[in-house]
Amino acid sequence: MRIELITTGSELLLGQVLNSHPGYLSGRLAMMGLELARQTAVPDGREAIAEVLGEAWGRSDLVIVTGGLGPTSDDITREVVAEFFQRPLEYHGAIYEKILGYFRHRSLTPPDLVKVQAMVPKGMEVLGNEVGTAPGFWFEENGKMLAVLPGPPRELAPMFEKGVEPKLRGRAKAAEGTRILRVYGIGESFVQERCEAAEGTRILRVYGIGSVS
Amino acid sequence: MRIELITTGSELLLGQVLNSHPGYLSGRLAMMGLELARQTAVPDGREAIAEVLGEAWGRSDLVIVTGGLGPTSDDITREVVAEFFQRPLEYHGAIYEKILGYFRHRSLTPPDLVKVQAMVPKGMEVLGNEVGTAPGFWFEENGKMLAVLPGPPRELAPMFEKGVEPKLRGRAKAAEGTRILRVYGIGESFVQERCEAAEGTRILRVYGIGSVS
Repeated sequence: MRIELITTGSELLLGQVLNSHPGYLSGRLAMMGLELARQTAVPDGREAIAEVLGEAWGRSDLVIVTGGLGPTSDDITREVVAEFFQRPLEYHGAIYEKILGYFRHRSLTPPDLVKVQAMVPKGMEVLGNEVGTAPGFWFEENGKMLAVLPGPPRELAPMFEKGVEPKLRGRAKAAEGTRILRVYGIGESFVQERCEAAEGTRILRVYGIGSVS
Repeated sequence: MRIELITTGSELLLGQVLNSHPGYLSGRLAMMGLELARQTAVPDGREAIAEVLGEAWGRSDLVIVTGGLGPTSDDITREVVAEFFQRPLEYHGAIYEKILGYFRHRSLTPPDLVKVQAMVPKGMEVLGNEVGTAPGFWFEENGKMLAVLPGPPRELAPMFEKGVEPKLRGRAKAAEGTRILRVYGIGESFVQERCEAAEGTRILRVYGIGSVS
């Protein structure tokens, strides 16, 4: 299964926010024996998101998109996805009720802006948000899968684990028997030489992170 | 100037290493008034790297590639770059001398593997590595620029700041006058409503990271 991750959000490309989604999501996928083939970060631009979505959808079996589901004017992923798949946004009263409840619980009057979060591309499955207001979506077409998830990590994680992982579990092959060796010392080249000398070893990759000299 | 960042390394797509390059590099670029248009992470695969390099080079003015310059068998960026630009790898005696010095200084015999790090695509400028053994490269062709930098953050940062930033400074427009407001509270929609009400304000983006409820 070829999987791509698209992380949207200008903040990820301005040095203001560390993009933790690739690490988190690829780690979760690895536990199911699945690998990310590519991860792309693009700013909150209609064209930029549509372009990379088109590329990724064309060559992948599963595309995961994060971010841009909030209520503010830079949150355009919902619209771009609706347009790309030619599935107009539909108002879901049940989602809006949940959003109202979220604000009521905090004794706040919801701003008009939040209503857009109750809009879902027609025919896409709603992924519930336990923590925030923005629901995600799940969509399958011609054997391909799309997951659209909110940007805040604390909203994304439970949605992925409860909403997306169960859908993927049956389709994942078992994880390969790999073993990670963490080594410290002077260099990668020594590690590769020693490992090659060990019988029955196949080296997948050797990488240095920041050895102390 | 359209800038893309390609981060190579399977470890970035297996949940084992947090990819700090996009945050660091986009932050440095932002200080010069430059923005990343796209960041892509791909595993250590010849085809995967060549494919994204071709895409990025075709549509960008500057492409920054990180990772895959080490001495081990998964470090293939050097070769892929040489092949893509049809510039065969050339042995640089001076680089090898520096590498030997690095090992000598630590009273170690250099493994044969490290010799590959003295190979540079023909005609590309060498970017010195103050901290480790792998040099980077800089290349310009038809008004386009390429920077290839090592993966370990502590090697990449000084190379970027001393080797690449001086080349970019003259070409950067002045940074826009933006102001970042960090706000806590219940939601992005309130922030946008209040900011809109303030005279003379143009909202660039409003994003939530992980508000406490």
